[in-house]
Amino acid sequence: MTEPDATLPEDEARHAAKMAKKKAARDRMMDAKTGEKGLIIVHTGPGKGKSSSGFGMIMRCIAHQMPCAVVQFIKGAWDTGERRLLTTHFSDLCQFHSMGEGFTWETQDKARDIAAAEAGWRKAQELIRDPSIRMVLLDEINIAFRYGYLDAAEVLAFLQAEKPPMTHVVLTGRGAPEALVEAADLVTEMTQVKHPFRAGIKAQPGVEF
Amino acid sequence: MTEPDATLPEDEARHAAKMAKKKAARDRMMDAKTGEKGLIIVHTGPGKGKSSSGFGMIMRCIAHQMPCAVVQFIKGAWDTGERRLLTTHFSDLCQFHSMGEGFTWETQDKARDIAAAEAGWRKAQELIRDPSIRMVLLDEINIAFRYGYLDAAEVLAFLQAEKPPMTHVVLTGRGAPEALVEAADLVTEMTQVKHPFRAGIKAQPGVEF
Repeated sequence: MTEPDATLPEDEARHAAKMAKKKAARDRMMDAKTGEKGLIIVHTGPGKGKSSSGFGMIMRCIAHQMPCAVVQFIKGAWDTGERRLLTTHFSDLCQFHSMGEGFTWETQDKARDIAAAEAGWRKAQELIRDPSIRMVLLDEINIAFRYGYLDAAEVLAFLQAEKPPMTHVVLTGRGAPEALVEAADLVTEMTQVKHPFRAGIKAQPGVEF
Repeated sequence: MTEPDATLPEDEARHAAKMAKKKAARDRMMDAKTGEKGLIIVHTGPGKGKSSSGFGMIMRCIAHQMPCAVVQFIKGAWDTGERRLLTTHFSDLCQFHSMGEGFTWETQDKARDIAAAEAGWRKAQELIRDPSIRMVLLDEINIAFRYGYLDAAEVLAFLQAEKPPMTHVVLTGRGAPEALVEAADLVTEMTQVKHPFRAGIKAQPGVEF
């Protein structure tokens, strides 16, 4: 057999040499990245994970003792896990504001939806202006843009003019406005490959809320 | 002006009627989804949010008092926010096991990488077999498949044969094997639209770890 065997010492040495070279290249690359900056982060697309990864970043901030805040624009009336966990365990580090009262087809009242979105945005502005708050998650705000309840251009102008340089602002929801994607520092599109709703499985605790 | 005005009572009534219809249709659709099932969930793709949304779901489980567990296959040596938060606050509800010792180019030792991946998988099997554990996050396990440290077919066969029906298993990492995507219930591909590393910004606490 002439095939290389992973357990042969010469193969291990070759692997180590290759990895040492890769590490050196990677270290050079990472050394060039020295900037620190408060980011505008967008999670969009039809797939799952937009809110849960925003919530995951909020938990990372809490772990690092970085004060942070959440404004929920749509799911306000729901008893979600994230809401329960943040309000019962971490209210000292993370403010949690639920402004929406559910999806538009739940409230069936456009004026009330618009008022809730506007109240959410006023609260968000107050939180973003406070430089002691290091991350503000605007959960499902893109839905408020899509329904015309908030003006994306106005929100973007505020972020560009008034966001403190080290504050991260995370905006989630499908259908993020193009101008927001253009202006953001970090944009991820969650693409749906397969979803269990299609197989008749309902929303389940831990997974969806 | 013949343009409809959002504040006119007739427009409000029209909106309410439209939304009532939408709600009825949606309720019928959601009523058809009665199934409950432990899911095989895959987060893959080059974009951000694979681990953080897995971590977000773990926090949802904790909020619902559902016992859960994390096995980290790659980032083991890192002091991440998720590790710190779970081990200091929630060790009663969530086991946290770090088996990897960093990326392959950090260890530069293939035999050690393989041994760590195999130890991680043994621990994962033990956790998945325990039906009291409702969600097991196998963080970055797809990387272990990509490097050939673990056999995806073997892992998949185990999940199909031994995963208790109500247990959710979440597998993250770019480059998920095709067979795993085929077999999974919920698959999201995180697509990278824009990343601040490209603009010279380094990994920052709260955002990346």
